[in-house]
Amino acid sequence: MNSINDGIQAIRNGLKKNNLHGIIIPSNDPHQSEYVSDYWKIREHFSGFTGSAGTLVVTQNEAAIWTDSRYFLQAEKQCLGTVVELQKQSIPHAPEHIPWLCNLLEKKSIIGIDYRLFSSSQMDYLLENASEKEIAIESYGTLIDDIWENRSAQPNGLISDYSIDFCGKDRMSKINEVKTELSNKGADFNFISSLDETCWLLNIRSADVDFTPLVISYTLIGNEKSYLFVHENRIEPELMAALNQDGIEVLSYDSIRTKLAELTLNKKVIASSSTLNYACFTSLEGELISRPSLVQHLKSIKNETEIANAKNGMVKDGVALTQFFIWLESHLESNTISEYDLGIKLESFRMKQEFYKYQSFGAIVGYKSNGAIIHYSAPKKGSSMISNDGVLLLDSGAQYENATTDITRTIWLGGTPSSELKKAYTLVLKGHIELDRAVFPKGTTGIQLDSFARMHLWKHGLTYAHGTGHGIGSYSAVHEPAQGFAARMTTYRGGTPHMENQFTTIEPGYYKEGEFGIRTENVVVSKEKFKSEHGSFIGFEPITLCPIDTELIDRSLISDHEIDWLNKYHQKVYDDLATHLTESEKTWLKQKCLAI
Amino acid sequence: MNSINDGIQAIRNGLKKNNLHGIIIPSNDPHQSEYVSDYWKIREHFSGFTGSAGTLVVTQNEAAIWTDSRYFLQAEKQCLGTVVELQKQSIPHAPEHIPWLCNLLEKKSIIGIDYRLFSSSQMDYLLENASEKEIAIESYGTLIDDIWENRSAQPNGLISDYSIDFCGKDRMSKINEVKTELSNKGADFNFISSLDETCWLLNIRSADVDFTPLVISYTLIGNEKSYLFVHENRIEPELMAALNQDGIEVLSYDSIRTKLAELTLNKKVIASSSTLNYACFTSLEGELISRPSLVQHLKSIKNETEIANAKNGMVKDGVALTQFFIWLESHLESNTISEYDLGIKLESFRMKQEFYKYQSFGAIVGYKSNGAIIHYSAPKKGSSMISNDGVLLLDSGAQYENATTDITRTIWLGGTPSSELKKAYTLVLKGHIELDRAVFPKGTTGIQLDSFARMHLWKHGLTYAHGTGHGIGSYSAVHEPAQGFAARMTTYRGGTPHMENQFTTIEPGYYKEGEFGIRTENVVVSKEKFKSEHGSFIGFEPITLCPIDTELIDRSLISDHEIDWLNKYHQKVYDDLATHLTESEKTWLKQKCLAI
Repeated sequence: MNSINDGIQAIRNGLKKNNLHGIIIPSNDPHQSEYVSDYWKIREHFSGFTGSAGTLVVTQNEAAIWTDSRYFLQAEKQCLGTVVELQKQSIPHAPEHIPWLCNLLEKKSIIGIDYRLFSSSQMDYLLENASEKEIAIESYGTLIDDIWENRSAQPNGLISDYSIDFCGKDRMSKINEVKTELSNKGADFNFISSLDETCWLLNIRSADVDFTPLVISYTLIGNEKSYLFVHENRIEPELMAALNQDGIEVLSYDSIRTKLAELTLNKKVIASSSTLNYACFTSLEGELISRPSLVQHLKSIKNETEIANAKNGMVKDGVALTQFFIWLESHLESNTISEYDLGIKLESFRMKQEFYKYQSFGAIVGYKSNGAIIHYSAPKKGSSMISNDGVLLLDSGAQYENATTDITRTIWLGGTPSSELKKAYTLVLKGHIELDRAVFPKGTTGIQLDSFARMHLWKHGLTYAHGTGHGIGSYSAVHEPAQGFAARMTTYRGGTPHMENQFTTIEPGYYKEGEFGIRTENVVVSKEKFKSEHGSFIGFEPITLCPIDTELIDRSLISDHEIDWLNKYHQKVYDDLATHLTESEKTWLKQKCLAI
Repeated sequence: MNSINDGIQAIRNGLKKNNLHGIIIPSNDPHQSEYVSDYWKIREHFSGFTGSAGTLVVTQNEAAIWTDSRYFLQAEKQCLGTVVELQKQSIPHAPEHIPWLCNLLEKKSIIGIDYRLFSSSQMDYLLENASEKEIAIESYGTLIDDIWENRSAQPNGLISDYSIDFCGKDRMSKINEVKTELSNKGADFNFISSLDETCWLLNIRSADVDFTPLVISYTLIGNEKSYLFVHENRIEPELMAALNQDGIEVLSYDSIRTKLAELTLNKKVIASSSTLNYACFTSLEGELISRPSLVQHLKSIKNETEIANAKNGMVKDGVALTQFFIWLESHLESNTISEYDLGIKLESFRMKQEFYKYQSFGAIVGYKSNGAIIHYSAPKKGSSMISNDGVLLLDSGAQYENATTDITRTIWLGGTPSSELKKAYTLVLKGHIELDRAVFPKGTTGIQLDSFARMHLWKHGLTYAHGTGHGIGSYSAVHEPAQGFAARMTTYRGGTPHMENQFTTIEPGYYKEGEFGIRTENVVVSKEKFKSEHGSFIGFEPITLCPIDTELIDRSLISDHEIDWLNKYHQKVYDDLATHLTESEKTWLKQKCLAI
């Protein structure tokens, strides 16, 4: 623990040396990535808190980690015995630390930040809050580099050309769609900061950030010429030739600011203010046309090849999960296993599948009361021992070279479930089915659909504090913007229209602190159900293939059409997986997929 | 028709004389009222278009009325043979005329407006659009006064003190709630432009605007002293003394700009930028704290007296409607009646009820295909003749001195309804019931609930183009902001949280152009259903008392819990109305309320 206190002290010394009075260290990288490379884990390194969302704020007298309710328990535990104190955000991702810090500091203080780690809209908010007390914002320069010993290097692995067999659309066709938009808007360039947008657009992949096959890069798509900013030695001649042939010049990642200034002089540049970082924003010499990312939208509409590959990935995931659950049932007959080890075991089954690369996020293995900790991460040492008793929540996913998966199942391991647990499980399932079965006009937004997943819980006074689902990529980010289901209008998952051929998760849940957690999650693909005089109507088709535990269903709460949905889903799971299973595996699966 | 062309010519002469190149004439008054006094019907007078929403734009070469799809047919008809052309808004209330006008005009043109008729946020949008071509915005001064002969005077009737027996909370208590908010926000004044806010806050009423017992006024509530701006001769000594005793000084309505400048010098003033007009905005000398109206929120939470009075009003409305429908059934056995005359007849039954004042809006009597015109207004001459055949949509409401009502029923008059009509009617009813039965956490917003009313229609490829409901006042505005149900996040009805003890309408519909219209509307009061560990949960209770036609229900589409809701609702209608009816009326109502 002393290493954390030493790190904070080093930051404080650095602040003094640089004549700064406070520092803000967010958890993202310059691309507003959700998962970041080790190089950018500054917040984690200096706070000791490993959760995915949090901000470290340090002054001479205070050191605070700001995070949301998902992480309160974890952050408290991880910061115990250090000078870092937990500050609880009332709204996830809200920059509540900013007014707090500005309030703490004296008039005319100076806050140090890394301009690359703030989007221009985040910067606006910071400047607005700082202005009242005439607080200045300055770059902290090499403060962190100077004090972080043994900092990891920036990722430098080879970049691969992503096969057309997987992505289904060539680079040039995608770029031409962006160029059409450029000419529609009378713009010269589209500047792209998001890693998943560049990787989708240019059909490239690498493994720069945790859990996600992305490439740390910027892209500037122009009417005539385009530019990819990446460490050049990462591209082999064949890919380099292909990029050049498609009109893309590769420039050094570190030259972004100077080249951006040079190339955009007197030009009109489209960029999204929510992902454009402030360093790049201030480097743009031309006129900025700030608008939601076109690439984000194009990418969210999957083509036939991507859909076929995703379905193929779901079969592999389903086979691995079938084998895993068979193993687990048998293992628990006379053994126990820790939550942490179970996560490893689960991965061992996925590893045997063709194209498997790695997990799409850190598996959440939450036994009994740990299931109630929404983003629980079982510790390597001392995680709970699972036996043939009680409930287990398992949220996991994989990156296959042709697909990304994400699935949650809540299963009963033995003993007699309480009626409270069965009721909550059944209401969550009813919400899942309600949303899965929804039919709605093309363009309906996530917030309009989100309540379908909550309505049955609500009638019993229950709810859950997270969104109901998110977009998911094709061998890309497991949380892919922008569509999804959320109860807030201010999130992109709430505000984005749903279209056909998108991949989205449906994952309502219920969490009883200290007792149990429930979540049932499938990936669905949206399809045009029919056209009417009122336009195109969309519905969902589940593509995740894994039985849903029927033992926990309270039959008094479930209606015929819901049973019908469940039976049809289980028939499909069995039909799609059976040919890939051994006889004994088939027998097990048939039993789990029996109509109720 | 020539009078319209003459009026447009007079405007054009006025433009020339005043060195203006275009004029924008909206339909609201300086208080952003929905219904306005005759004095402010400038748009209606000069365009000939009588719909509730529309904007007239005139240049030397163009004269255009901008309105939304509800009014396309009506505007086309009413502008036929004049120089005024219909311009179709793609989004209701969107200021699409502004880019259109700026595009038409030459560089450095001048647009004339009345600053009182634009909110400061509308003005921002206008200025932003005008800036590109350096178009100036100027007041058109007395241009309209100079050319509008026989313009009505501003309302000047007596203002009454609204009885505590009806409003349930005295003036001082309400003002103190605003003062608490002022001190919480460190502000000196709360400036109120909305007529219904002033009338609620000060417990005053008059009849200044169509359909609504409001007083044309502004209010400035201060920490110490408060000011009501109204034509002084409208207040009798007794009310004047009561106002003065509560710390309210009455100032001349016409002195608002000079007094505002004087009183707010160096003060902090809370006001809502969506209702504050630009003339007042520029008169504020202090610091403006722009925020959603506190009074609007306070007013939306009804007290026990208001709820009891509303229920009493609903009984009167239910009795009048029972008598009206009995009369209609008997009349149609051997007679016909025009839509227009039926509206008059309906009012004649309401008139007999205690406290009846006038309609709360122009009744919509839409027979057969006219029911598909959402805001149809039957013309005095030549409206359709209703006989004992087909479907009738009837949307009407009343202002009683103790309550405001609003109800829509769709009834079958005779013959055999088509299966298409029955299906649509049943799906609308299912949506109505789904939303009525919803239970949800306190604070859930309108857009999160709106889809419940649409989900059954959606599954059959049907939908409707209007919101699903609106707040309703207590002897005040029939459309009372802010809560409601809407599919758009940008409307206040979509974005406002629902709380307990609010009055809201539930009114899904379906419209088949050229054939029929369906809408089933009740007023509901929100109630706390229960508290759980997740907080307070809210549900609705219908307070409108009038049978829903069961003849049009397609029994194959309706489920047991929906039938149960309908039977319980009908039992309540009968129980609550029976004691106020004659024996024969009871017999008729019992038949209509039979369980199905």
